[in-house]
Amino acid sequence: MGDVVESKEWYLAAYCPKGVPTSDHLKLRTISLSLAFDSIPDNHLAVETLLLSVDPYLRGTITGTIEGLYMPQFQPNQVLSIFSVVRVIRSKDSKYIEGDLVLNGFGLVAEYSIVPSSHIIRKIDPSNGISLSDYLGSLGVPGFAAWIGIEVLGDPKAGSNVFISAASGAVGMNAGQLAKIRGCRVIGSTGSDDKVKLIKEEFGYDEGFNYNKETNYDAALNKYFPDGIDVYLDNVGGKMLEAVLNHVNKNARIPLCGMISQYNKVWTEREGVRNLLNMVGKEVRMEGFMLGSYWHRFGDFAKDMERYIQEGKVKSKSKINIGIESFLESFNSLFSSSKIGKVVVQVKAY
Amino acid sequence: MGDVVESKEWYLAAYCPKGVPTSDHLKLRTISLSLAFDSIPDNHLAVETLLLSVDPYLRGTITGTIEGLYMPQFQPNQVLSIFSVVRVIRSKDSKYIEGDLVLNGFGLVAEYSIVPSSHIIRKIDPSNGISLSDYLGSLGVPGFAAWIGIEVLGDPKAGSNVFISAASGAVGMNAGQLAKIRGCRVIGSTGSDDKVKLIKEEFGYDEGFNYNKETNYDAALNKYFPDGIDVYLDNVGGKMLEAVLNHVNKNARIPLCGMISQYNKVWTEREGVRNLLNMVGKEVRMEGFMLGSYWHRFGDFAKDMERYIQEGKVKSKSKINIGIESFLESFNSLFSSSKIGKVVVQVKAY
Repeated sequence: MGDVVESKEWYLAAYCPKGVPTSDHLKLRTISLSLAFDSIPDNHLAVETLLLSVDPYLRGTITGTIEGLYMPQFQPNQVLSIFSVVRVIRSKDSKYIEGDLVLNGFGLVAEYSIVPSSHIIRKIDPSNGISLSDYLGSLGVPGFAAWIGIEVLGDPKAGSNVFISAASGAVGMNAGQLAKIRGCRVIGSTGSDDKVKLIKEEFGYDEGFNYNKETNYDAALNKYFPDGIDVYLDNVGGKMLEAVLNHVNKNARIPLCGMISQYNKVWTEREGVRNLLNMVGKEVRMEGFMLGSYWHRFGDFAKDMERYIQEGKVKSKSKINIGIESFLESFNSLFSSSKIGKVVVQVKAY
Repeated sequence: MGDVVESKEWYLAAYCPKGVPTSDHLKLRTISLSLAFDSIPDNHLAVETLLLSVDPYLRGTITGTIEGLYMPQFQPNQVLSIFSVVRVIRSKDSKYIEGDLVLNGFGLVAEYSIVPSSHIIRKIDPSNGISLSDYLGSLGVPGFAAWIGIEVLGDPKAGSNVFISAASGAVGMNAGQLAKIRGCRVIGSTGSDDKVKLIKEEFGYDEGFNYNKETNYDAALNKYFPDGIDVYLDNVGGKMLEAVLNHVNKNARIPLCGMISQYNKVWTEREGVRNLLNMVGKEVRMEGFMLGSYWHRFGDFAKDMERYIQEGKVKSKSKINIGIESFLESFNSLFSSSKIGKVVVQVKAY
């Protein structure tokens, strides 16, 4: 490893208020970066990126519109950052040595970077039988989101009726399994018959339906929830959220994790939810959440989830795309219903 | 008082799925009712109605449509019931004697009735300086709703920015004063310049705006909430709720008390709220509530509120319509912006 490396990185070229971001909005460039030991500040690490997490929430951070009030926005020309698994090349923090694998909470979408060690969430023990991509999936952003949605905000009892949209997605697959561990009846909606089969056979959902086939959501929920819905983990918003509000039980809880069906529209063009009045009569609680407010719980989550993975109680699927060049395409795949499970980009073989 | 009286009563003749109820839906009839002592069951009281509370929530109980799932529905031919102040005529419960004034939680909309004493919420001491109509206003359904919305669910801190819609209505006037007692900055929206003047001068709101004049709600909220909204007590739903969601602060709370702008429409014709995604980024909690789930807190509420009224910290306005015949007209006045404060019907002079 020389002192200066060529490093490819993705940066925000222009805000994307609506639609799917293109290479006009997110661009790849190559910079020269000095990794010379003397150029690394104290309590910083030089790292090379192995795996990048590809998460839908990023969509909200590059709109530059009124949503800018509601999610922190990247600035033009700024390199994107996201959860990543990186390897330490050089360390100016005595807690880390060259070769350590670590989870980086604000990893630049770049091949190489210098990072403050305060951004490191945990070390990764490659010998514990958990695949590296799981640290970005079940043990990363989507797993943590699923855990907050189910364990903290949804808090279903054994026997509760739990509904999860985007059920085969990175959050959904984890959420469904966490609800099953709690003894709930769990139903998921997803975008194909194959994915319905997957969530039932692989992730233990009791039932599932293909929202592209059963397009009358109200009828579908009527069929799958004869006793109503106690907890709905909303990953999609729009028409599905509206349909759910016609089937909620008293004191139902609706943690709002994100709204994949709505991200690519400006808000005035989004699907309005017309039946919020149902929340009054049924005393429903709907609550949005961001992971940043729950970092103090990350340790509890990681301990639970690691055990579940090792005991085989939580399984996962991921789609690993090769090469940092694939980041934009990988990101856009989140908005098609073709993908299954957690999407990651492998920047470097490990 | 003879043993048999003629008693006028309002009953549900036909469900009213949309629009304002008319005399096709709610009808007045006269029955003969025996008040003979021997015909009164144990632990029951014969009472005459003095004052009837007229509350918007009643609208949701006579739709007979899908909303029937969300509010308990009156049955065809059933006499309506509502909070009322009644006088005991004959008592078969040793806790009550003839002449007692009591607050009846399920008072029939009738001149006379036989009621189980378990329906009596409290005795009223006519010598304590509180007007009888206040027992149906600040100390009744709307006051209790305001207290739950502000004290229990909204829970604003001193200095918080609180917004209240339908601010000069029965709930709003109490809610604004409760938030002021907590030291908040309180802004209200209401339907005329006179009512804006009233909420500021009489109820201590810091600011108010006339939503019929400042029809761009987004611009109005931008002007009155330069620092954003921490708590919004929603009494109207629809476009105002949507506008609020563009101005919420992190961890804002939105207790949903009712949605007066939406009651007379079937749900598919209601105004959709398109920006619920803002609840994710700002981690907003929206929660519907019904008084029935909070009866265990009624004593705490009544103790607080009685003191506030006696200390002059909570003032109120009411509109007293004379005669049980005026019940339907009084009820429909809730949906026009002409009324101010609490609407009651005086059935009998006292």
